[in-house]
Amino acid sequence: MTDPTPNSQALRASTSSGVHVVIVGGGFAGLNAAQTLRKAKDVRVTLVDKRNHHLFQPLLYQVATAALGAPDIAAPIRTILRRARNTTVLLAEVERVDPKRKVVHTTRGELAWDHLIVATGLTNFYFGHDDWAQHAPGLKSLHDALEIRRRVLLAFEAAEAQQAPAEVNASLTFVVVGGGPTGVELAGALGEIARHTLAKQFRTFDPARARIILVEGGPRVLSTFDEALSTKAQLQLERLGVTVWTGRRVTKIDARGIELGDERIEARTVLWAAGVAGRGLVGEMGVALTRDGRLPVTDDLSVAGHPDVFVVGDIAHREQDGAVVPAVAPAALQMGRHAAENVLRRIRGAQTSPFHYRDKGMLATIGRKAGVAQLGGLKFSGFLAWFLWLFVHIFFLIGFRNRLVVMVSWALSYLFWTRGARVILERPSTAEDESVEPSPHAGE
Amino acid sequence: MTDPTPNSQALRASTSSGVHVVIVGGGFAGLNAAQTLRKAKDVRVTLVDKRNHHLFQPLLYQVATAALGAPDIAAPIRTILRRARNTTVLLAEVERVDPKRKVVHTTRGELAWDHLIVATGLTNFYFGHDDWAQHAPGLKSLHDALEIRRRVLLAFEAAEAQQAPAEVNASLTFVVVGGGPTGVELAGALGEIARHTLAKQFRTFDPARARIILVEGGPRVLSTFDEALSTKAQLQLERLGVTVWTGRRVTKIDARGIELGDERIEARTVLWAAGVAGRGLVGEMGVALTRDGRLPVTDDLSVAGHPDVFVVGDIAHREQDGAVVPAVAPAALQMGRHAAENVLRRIRGAQTSPFHYRDKGMLATIGRKAGVAQLGGLKFSGFLAWFLWLFVHIFFLIGFRNRLVVMVSWALSYLFWTRGARVILERPSTAEDESVEPSPHAGE
Repeated sequence: MTDPTPNSQALRASTSSGVHVVIVGGGFAGLNAAQTLRKAKDVRVTLVDKRNHHLFQPLLYQVATAALGAPDIAAPIRTILRRARNTTVLLAEVERVDPKRKVVHTTRGELAWDHLIVATGLTNFYFGHDDWAQHAPGLKSLHDALEIRRRVLLAFEAAEAQQAPAEVNASLTFVVVGGGPTGVELAGALGEIARHTLAKQFRTFDPARARIILVEGGPRVLSTFDEALSTKAQLQLERLGVTVWTGRRVTKIDARGIELGDERIEARTVLWAAGVAGRGLVGEMGVALTRDGRLPVTDDLSVAGHPDVFVVGDIAHREQDGAVVPAVAPAALQMGRHAAENVLRRIRGAQTSPFHYRDKGMLATIGRKAGVAQLGGLKFSGFLAWFLWLFVHIFFLIGFRNRLVVMVSWALSYLFWTRGARVILERPSTAEDESVEPSPHAGE
Repeated sequence: MTDPTPNSQALRASTSSGVHVVIVGGGFAGLNAAQTLRKAKDVRVTLVDKRNHHLFQPLLYQVATAALGAPDIAAPIRTILRRARNTTVLLAEVERVDPKRKVVHTTRGELAWDHLIVATGLTNFYFGHDDWAQHAPGLKSLHDALEIRRRVLLAFEAAEAQQAPAEVNASLTFVVVGGGPTGVELAGALGEIARHTLAKQFRTFDPARARIILVEGGPRVLSTFDEALSTKAQLQLERLGVTVWTGRRVTKIDARGIELGDERIEARTVLWAAGVAGRGLVGEMGVALTRDGRLPVTDDLSVAGHPDVFVVGDIAHREQDGAVVPAVAPAALQMGRHAAENVLRRIRGAQTSPFHYRDKGMLATIGRKAGVAQLGGLKFSGFLAWFLWLFVHIFFLIGFRNRLVVMVSWALSYLFWTRGARVILERPSTAEDESVEPSPHAGE
């Protein structure tokens, strides 16, 4: 499928008319930028993404924990933008940005731009321990989510087939590294799976025996929330059987467990929710990146020294009133729209306007009927927070079909504790799991 | 995840009481056998499958064509059998059956049985051209379906990025090999995708330009149906823009197209629906297999010379009134139940009874509002056949959640021509598609 004419994009760009805006990334920031440019006169937009789908990251942990299917939280980017007639969607990976020549180099050829909007998001970050990635998958893509689902479900299957108590215990020990929203939501879901979803489905052990450990290096979980809510969240986790360790750092992760200083935990399943960082792409702007690889942007979201390059979404490091704008969906939506409006201002020769983040609050859910919410001064937890979480996430989910299916799945889970996606998808077998996985061509 | 105590199964079997029935395979035949043995006194059952899920094969083509998500047509075997308290479900691959020692060798150790029921189904068969498999995926597992979905969606994406007309045409040429129900349903779905689902979503070409060719070696499609219905099916396919070639054989398949004798068709996407065959497992019974690797069974579905081994479902070759019992779900359901009843008869020292297949008729759907049905003497086509197909497939689908979600998805597809699962899932990149696929650890 490789393109025989690598410069086809460059050719097309040069032969079409109008100002050309290239958007890299089809997340909330990139999509919202494209939607904002939709009606602009004499403006052509090309949105490049290495995936064909927009992914609703806030529900990714539900795919990982088999509550939802992968397609339920994703929508094809070209379907979302089908009415944006001035936008071409290109499935390709951007390899390099050249701000001087004003082109992006993609796996399908060059794209020349007049204005560039970078919205590539963040990726899993292992603080220099890249070898941990194979043992402790993170949760940033559907691939990650399906891999986590595979490992969690296979761990219980392995326990059913084993006799050696030490092996059974290791198979039934799950460690989640990182106490932010993702880690808290993963751990809570694992607690529910062990206590309720899998009840009565195994013959040689009780799934409720599973040990779920949430390790947080800082003093408390959900550190971005108010301290009282962190305490509430920890209580709700413990009610689901999750052991919460705060102020402890993981010093080693291997195929059979983890180490915290001189203590070792035998655990066959370790999940990573401790760190995310930016990718190299924005490293070529001649601007010093933050320690986590994010790019500091100016007031109007452009890059210092590159007024025609805007960086938005999680990858953008924007300080406002002394605080950093958080890497959350509402901020991405606002940045995407604002950057596009600034592009339009520049096209008509007007002054760009500074970006101001309007905080919409924070939400996290901890299993069923529990959660924490912080909306401006308002703080609450438990059922109300959980219900608000459901409502907000259905609302921001893209696609009517997705909303309907997710609501149906959630209603059934609520009534019957079921998880509708407890399917282990085959993949090429590896030394690690040869014993249970057929090779891709083994067929049925 | 490999089992450190390879004989744990053998150990467990020897330490538990009761007659031990081992069932290999969690399809309709195997599941129905386990359900039939559910209430039997002093009978222990172990069902072994290399997958954790039962797969509803009749709807697999809808996963391949992005109408449904993978979990929608699958259900965890242990959930289906959770109330069969005498049944242990084991996720493992059976490597060998030893009828003399009465054990099966699995990837998780040995299983000793008193009675064995083999229901392993069929796998893709390329008539000796195994190298075709990589170029023309078949449709027997969720892995197959997701691979086909990937290739179909990537082909349109590639066309959008290409300029060379020859490349665009090859990307927009889809060949389906085999005119049975699977091939007909795949081709029909591709026709709908090109004509309706993708309409207005590309900027550089019209998806309706896509060329879909169905190649059938025999004189007509759906050869098991009445001839008049075959003609109707072909007309319905052509109405969807599918080119039907009968009486022509594919002589070569490579990465860039197919050959029929001295004619070559450049096609980037080739799908295999021409052949299925049995796997080696039943080759060790000392009975001559049929040409397509199925095992001839005696009247009571046991294997000649092995009264304690029953072979059921698609893998069983059972002749009745001069005809072969077809490899369809109703036959598998009936065989599974009957074999289990014969096991119970043998346990209480009674005579086994011969199996008689009750033909429930045949159905095939060709896109929306079209299909053919043959129920005993009754033959009809068009809307009524299509509607009956919908009803029957919802009815036989396992799991309340699955039924609900599938009905929702179908209703939306019917109203809006949408396909809710147009998501390309990442996988390790290969030389073939490096240009668009991130590596598994590329993350977000």
